[in-house]
Amino acid sequence: MSLAARTADLPPAGAAAPAAARRGEFEATLALRHGGTPRVRIAWELAGPEGAPVVLVAGGISAHRHASPSPDFPEPGWAGDLVRAGRTLDPAHVRVLGFDYVGADGRLDAPIDTTDQADAVALLLDALGIERLRAFVGYSYGALVGLQFAARHPLRVEALVAVSGAHRAHPYAAAWRALQRKAVALGQLQCADVQGLSLARQFAMLSYRTPEEFEERFDAPPQVANGRVRVAAEDYLDVAGARFVARTPVTAWLRLSESIDLHRVDPARVRVPTVVVAVEGDRLVPLSDSVALVEGLGAHGQLRVLRSPYGHDAFLKETDRIDAILAGVLRQHGESA
Amino acid sequence: MSLAARTADLPPAGAAAPAAARRGEFEATLALRHGGTPRVRIAWELAGPEGAPVVLVAGGISAHRHASPSPDFPEPGWAGDLVRAGRTLDPAHVRVLGFDYVGADGRLDAPIDTTDQADAVALLLDALGIERLRAFVGYSYGALVGLQFAARHPLRVEALVAVSGAHRAHPYAAAWRALQRKAVALGQLQCADVQGLSLARQFAMLSYRTPEEFEERFDAPPQVANGRVRVAAEDYLDVAGARFVARTPVTAWLRLSESIDLHRVDPARVRVPTVVVAVEGDRLVPLSDSVALVEGLGAHGQLRVLRSPYGHDAFLKETDRIDAILAGVLRQHGESA
Repeated sequence: MSLAARTADLPPAGAAAPAAARRGEFEATLALRHGGTPRVRIAWELAGPEGAPVVLVAGGISAHRHASPSPDFPEPGWAGDLVRAGRTLDPAHVRVLGFDYVGADGRLDAPIDTTDQADAVALLLDALGIERLRAFVGYSYGALVGLQFAARHPLRVEALVAVSGAHRAHPYAAAWRALQRKAVALGQLQCADVQGLSLARQFAMLSYRTPEEFEERFDAPPQVANGRVRVAAEDYLDVAGARFVARTPVTAWLRLSESIDLHRVDPARVRVPTVVVAVEGDRLVPLSDSVALVEGLGAHGQLRVLRSPYGHDAFLKETDRIDAILAGVLRQHGESA
Repeated sequence: MSLAARTADLPPAGAAAPAAARRGEFEATLALRHGGTPRVRIAWELAGPEGAPVVLVAGGISAHRHASPSPDFPEPGWAGDLVRAGRTLDPAHVRVLGFDYVGADGRLDAPIDTTDQADAVALLLDALGIERLRAFVGYSYGALVGLQFAARHPLRVEALVAVSGAHRAHPYAAAWRALQRKAVALGQLQCADVQGLSLARQFAMLSYRTPEEFEERFDAPPQVANGRVRVAAEDYLDVAGARFVARTPVTAWLRLSESIDLHRVDPARVRVPTVVVAVEGDRLVPLSDSVALVEGLGAHGQLRVLRSPYGHDAFLKETDRIDAILAGVLRQHGESA
């Protein structure tokens, strides 16, 4: 891995006001695990007061650098109920760092691994002059990247919180994602990329949520119209698909989806204190894999189990409970640091 | 519903030898629940000695009239390990009746309901001169048809065994099937019907099986070839898709898939003794729906729960346990008849 970063958009030292946020991006050369050393763009956002401990927050493959709104960047973030005043991740007291995953701009059409993302995070910390993260908080894909980061760059993070992500993709979840990629390929056969990606997203939605939630929301008989049957959840799924394709380049989605399935990390190589948060009822990351991960972490691992009707998406929904877990982790490592 | 049957292929009375099988088909006019009174083709197969009690066996939407091989029709059947010498459904002692679902030939392009299938069964019994079934054994879609048959034609069946099917489609399962139908529609957009149906079948396979089985069979790292990631289950799924499209008309599949989602029956209207067999881990028919069904059946219902790594497909895999349940039902109703 070679670093050739232009640290763009860094503010003058000491200029940031509390809760201010800044953004930037730079290019770097990244040696990919599956071959090639392309130039990649690393885009980041950092919110919070200069000198405060830094917590990196990384979400699912659709997440990005903008976790929460700030006066500088007022648009809603992807983790707005976890990163805000009153929460453990309050940008008045903690610096919250986010980044766009390598490949998320759709310009890198090659197999991307979680190791590549972890190395990109190290480059980002170099570029920002951050020696060590107080914590890496990763959800879903972010948990996979966090595990790789802890394994590859252990001196640069004090604690890891890995929510809804394990040391490998479960074979059933991998098959589920492979079929989503086939839906895109079916669309691409005939230049119907958007329809293919929309279907893939809708199929993914079923893996992110649970039967309990669908029963609660969509327990109505189907409609028969124009000779066709339409079930109660179809409007919801159609909207979810349309919203997704409007913001997602097909190549980015394909490569990041593959990246989840390429992910493998030996838990014994992770020697950073790690809290694994599993959600009972998660259809992508079964509790048994989280248990296996924690067993492999040995003395470094702790397991927390949540029950949630939101399944894999619990991180974005069960924010009070996640915040309580984060409070425990940050208090502990704040005191020992 | 009007009957206009030509009873074709019926052998001369008394001519059948033990374990002989015969087949036939006839046309009838069927008043469909969602409109229209088309002429439909009803194809059947009856194995076993003249005068023996008749058990109708109905499977999933891909099943057909040929449950098991016989000297007359030696090709493998869809339920060969449940209908054979040594089993409760031994064609030496029981007459086993199977039929092709209405719409299975792909010639009826209209919404088909489980009530339509139930009425077709009544027409079939009329045509064969069978007053009353000793039992209706239905699995998956067959369980739905059995429930409707018991509700609509209660005098024509002594006992029902409903495996992996309930009184309504679960909203999550309905959404899963709706996305399969969208895969077909995506293929049809561009005359890639076969690819669409193959993808739909592969989606469906994930709902028929369980993560436990996939972990057992496909726990290997993905391959990277030609710049693309291929997970361990993809070969298996591709083969399953290709086999399916080779034997399934697209229209038949679409209409029978819809039919599952149209299914609704009030359990209180089922007053035939019914054993509901639920499989813990079935991703299409959750245990909670089977429990609700049995509660609605009141004194007429009994619940049996199996745990199986095969999920919704347990009927075809846990044949020893299913056979033991059938033995109990047939013994009981054989004695009281």
